[in-house]
Amino acid sequence: VPTTFGLKAAGWLLAVVEARRRLAELGALLPAELGGAAGTLAAFGADGPQVVRLFAAELGLAEPLLPWHTDRSLLARLGAALAIAAGGCAKIGYDVALLEQTEVGEVREPPGEGGSSTMPQKRNPVGSAIAVACSRRVEASAQVLLGGLAQEHERAVGGWQAEWGALTDALAFAGGAAAAVARVLHTLEVDAARMRANLELGGGAVMSERVTLLLASSLGYERARETVAAAAARASGSGGSLRAELAGELPEGELDEVFDPTTYLGAAAELVDTALDHYRKDEGWVTTATGV
Amino acid sequence: VPTTFGLKAAGWLLAVVEARRRLAELGALLPAELGGAAGTLAAFGADGPQVVRLFAAELGLAEPLLPWHTDRSLLARLGAALAIAAGGCAKIGYDVALLEQTEVGEVREPPGEGGSSTMPQKRNPVGSAIAVACSRRVEASAQVLLGGLAQEHERAVGGWQAEWGALTDALAFAGGAAAAVARVLHTLEVDAARMRANLELGGGAVMSERVTLLLASSLGYERARETVAAAAARASGSGGSLRAELAGELPEGELDEVFDPTTYLGAAAELVDTALDHYRKDEGWVTTATGV
Amino acid sequence: VPTTFGLKAAGWLLAVVEARRRLAELGALLPAELGGAAGTLAAFGADGPQVVRLFAAELGLAEPLLPWHTDRSLLARLGAALAIAAGGCAKIGYDVALLEQTEVGEVREPPGEGGSSTMPQKRNPVGSAIAVACSRRVEASAQVLLGGLAQEHERAVGGWQAEWGALTDALAFAGGAAAAVARVLHTLEVDAARMRANLELGGGAVMSERVTLLLASSLGYERARETVAAAAARASGSGGSLRAELAGELPEGELDEVFDPTTYLGAAAELVDTALDHYRKDEGWVTTATGV
Amino acid sequence: VPTTFGLKAAGWLLAVVEARRRLAELGALLPAELGGAAGTLAAFGADGPQVVRLFAAELGLAEPLLPWHTDRSLLARLGAALAIAAGGCAKIGYDVALLEQTEVGEVREPPGEGGSSTMPQKRNPVGSAIAVACSRRVEASAQVLLGGLAQEHERAVGGWQAEWGALTDALAFAGGAAAAVARVLHTLEVDAARMRANLELGGGAVMSERVTLLLASSLGYERARETVAAAAARASGSGGSLRAELAGELPEGELDEVFDPTTYLGAAAELVDTALDHYRKDEGWVTTATGV
Repeated sequence: VPTTFGLKAAGWLLAVVEARRRLAELGALLPAELGGAAGTLAAFGADGPQVVRLFAAELGLAEPLLPWHTDRSLLARLGAALAIAAGGCAKIGYDVALLEQTEVGEVREPPGEGGSSTMPQKRNPVGSAIAVACSRRVEASAQVLLGGLAQEHERAVGGWQAEWGALTDALAFAGGAAAAVARVLHTLEVDAARMRANLELGGGAVMSERVTLLLASSLGYERARETVAAAAARASGSGGSLRAELAGELPEGELDEVFDPTTYLGAAAELVDTALDHYRKDEGWVTTATGV
Repeated sequence: VPTTFGLKAAGWLLAVVEARRRLAELGALLPAELGGAAGTLAAFGADGPQVVRLFAAELGLAEPLLPWHTDRSLLARLGAALAIAAGGCAKIGYDVALLEQTEVGEVREPPGEGGSSTMPQKRNPVGSAIAVACSRRVEASAQVLLGGLAQEHERAVGGWQAEWGALTDALAFAGGAAAAVARVLHTLEVDAARMRANLELGGGAVMSERVTLLLASSLGYERARETVAAAAARASGSGGSLRAELAGELPEGELDEVFDPTTYLGAAAELVDTALDHYRKDEGWVTTATGV
Repeated sequence: VPTTFGLKAAGWLLAVVEARRRLAELGALLPAELGGAAGTLAAFGADGPQVVRLFAAELGLAEPLLPWHTDRSLLARLGAALAIAAGGCAKIGYDVALLEQTEVGEVREPPGEGGSSTMPQKRNPVGSAIAVACSRRVEASAQVLLGGLAQEHERAVGGWQAEWGALTDALAFAGGAAAAVARVLHTLEVDAARMRANLELGGGAVMSERVTLLLASSLGYERARETVAAAAARASGSGGSLRAELAGELPEGELDEVFDPTTYLGAAAELVDTALDHYRKDEGWVTTATGV
Repeated sequence: VPTTFGLKAAGWLLAVVEARRRLAELGALLPAELGGAAGTLAAFGADGPQVVRLFAAELGLAEPLLPWHTDRSLLARLGAALAIAAGGCAKIGYDVALLEQTEVGEVREPPGEGGSSTMPQKRNPVGSAIAVACSRRVEASAQVLLGGLAQEHERAVGGWQAEWGALTDALAFAGGAAAAVARVLHTLEVDAARMRANLELGGGAVMSERVTLLLASSLGYERARETVAAAAARASGSGGSLRAELAGELPEGELDEVFDPTTYLGAAAELVDTALDHYRKDEGWVTTATGV
């Protein structure tokens, strides 16, 4: 069935907005860590909890309920949130790269990036590939952070040490994925005419759901389905169009509209507005919450 | 430095409480999915959004902002939350298994589980091992769910299909980890006398931080540190105790207290209370929020 | 630049042949495990090594150098080999799914599988998706097996227990990936005419490497590259063809051949023969080695 | 049951020797890659295969059967082999760290590394932790390489680009794990007396398998097992020894030997010799094969 590029992009937007919100929330949760070797604060005498409070305030970090050197949940959550954010970028990159295929040609990353050394006309999906590649690295780093949860006693053998580099990588590659996909989206050329033309490729096959539902009101659903399937098979076999094969089944005056994909977009426009509203509200929230 | 079993267990508790809370929150967020093949709701005509609303209400699920068959973030979040919950259980299992080692002997899982076929006296850390094993499986399933984010267009090739079994496994194994560790903790025998005895094993070495800080007030930190390190080396070489080696450096009347680990526990008791308070509040929240 | 479907399939073949060979080799390596709780064979008295020899022979397994309950390398290798085999299948599935896209249409999985409930004409890449989905699950299981290497002493806490199910899953899902992709390939409809037509889509752009190399002999490489890039940009802007834009630069009698992709396939046919030779030799080896 | 430190170390050795061998074998297999954008070698005209041959010879790499830019199996194998090698090092690190625990104390990493800032006497398992931490990072990198198998057509979107850094990391961290564990093993202090003493900790419980087998010859296996289990329970309850509890069941003259763990080591010594023989042969092979 047909959809709009706008609805596809609205899906991208929501995933990214949610990922950004969670990162902002986690950033506000990250607590200071101070507890001494066993987390008892014994070296500070009776002042331990007060020292932690002042230390956290000084660093602008949240105050921990407990010293958390043995509870790595927040780092694991951060790793997962970064992987989800990068995954949202990779989803965009993937879709863009698929739309960029020569045979599809619905969008293009701008020239100047990713020219092939021997094929000057070629535009490679460079930004999309970077987003996907970075996302794979974040995912692997998140795995290390999840694996760090099962640490030994108050001082882990290796799991804890592996976290440092993994967290750095997760942050760097998530940033890389976001930057790459931002550049792609800011410069993407969208070819609406080609999108429209591709919808026609199957000779109306993209409208078969609508036709089936229409015929079902007179034929019943099962017979409608069989009728359309048979017509689709004939069209596919002869290289003809579904519309031609079904011409006798529908009033001729309705054929144009029935096979017009732009009139079978359901709530696409409304859903795009919903996503944009959500984005604008979230934008305000993030600006306030993070001061950025 | 010494710590208490209570503080260790308080760390376990917080990790589990937080993990439970996040699962309850995510459970409340999970939206219904209804959108048709491309997410436009076109087959429902003008009633699409209203149909989604009623559908979600009927299922007792949250209403989605957008059809989300292309945005798998929530499933990835659920996978990560399950991995973190299972990881919190595995941390407990790991610590228990380490405490159960013959040479440590501070806790025991009850007889009746995990008897060895050829070594009747042996008590294997069966429940702990199950918790750790389940956690590894959840982690791997979470990886599949994170990898499902970068799906293709409106219908993924494989990533989406891989989610089904991976989510089932993640739920089952997270439940397995929680059940195993609950059984372990409900029946765990704690040997406080052995814990106390193990603290003495190093001939007072566990108190070297306190001694260093005490000596530092007269000698300065660097000289205090060297003095204690040299004494520790002599003690270690001769098989003697740090206390004996440092006897001349400290007033004799204070030696007993200085080398008493029970008086160097810092804020351990207070931190345990904090964790229990937090647990009780969260218990109320979860009961209210989930109706369980 | 153009390639042939045969060369693409030859690449698929080699990956699968190599993966099959490694699995057969590993199968022959898998040793019996018998060692007692600590691997000393003490319960068998002086006969230990002899008992192991007979035990392995009885089971038709290789004789181990040492009891290997603490060295999980072979299971990790098996997990990796299964992931690589499944990955080879997923690569095929991915390529097939991409070739099946409506806008590409170069191959089709047969009807009867993966019909859409509401879009009767639609042929979904069901087999390809299964291969990719299974491969993701094998990969996750392999991760559990790799993670099992760092086990504790003679009896691991959890890592070892997690192996059982992970290995079962790895075997099952690798088999699933292979079966799915075998079914896809046995029934795949290849549309050679569409492949040929898609090569023309860019108006000869696919031949720009050849044209550049040809012009380079008179213009030098840099000027040739600029000439072709400028022509490609003009063609892309006007919707014309690269051939038309470059007509003046090349002898008219040569244009047909220069822009004929079937005469710029390099060693594709020879490479396909190489792959088939290799496959036939390997086929013989596997039959002999495994008796299947 | 008792084992020897030698047999444990023999297990470490075999895992490392096998991992080294596989890396050397894979190193010899790595082929040159030259094929042009689609792998046809078209730009080289009729000389393509010959150019590949000379190119590979020039680089000292194996000659590929086919251009392999779409078949990433060898990189995935290399990633897995590095993960297995690092996992073998992590196994050593883990065991060493467990043996280093204060309550076990059977080995020590030398002073000078890993001193605690506040606890001068403390010897942290620094090298072991590095080996484990590096191994976790290699594992995650191997995951990226396994995930790269399912690439798209002749030029992947992201999976291929993610390989570069992942392979670099896998090589670097595998090297780090090997270096760390080599340093640990070259300087490890082994405390044989403590090992012996720890065997006695359970009051002879470590010998219960032998005692059960001995009693079984007169009592039958089931009754022997129950007798020993009951004695073990009494010993455990009273803090007494299994030997004392079973004194009446065995001829007094045999008690010393029956409860002497050094006479219940089975084939441990023979197995160590087997492992060392294997190592020496492999050492020769690697030296010859790699010229190092």
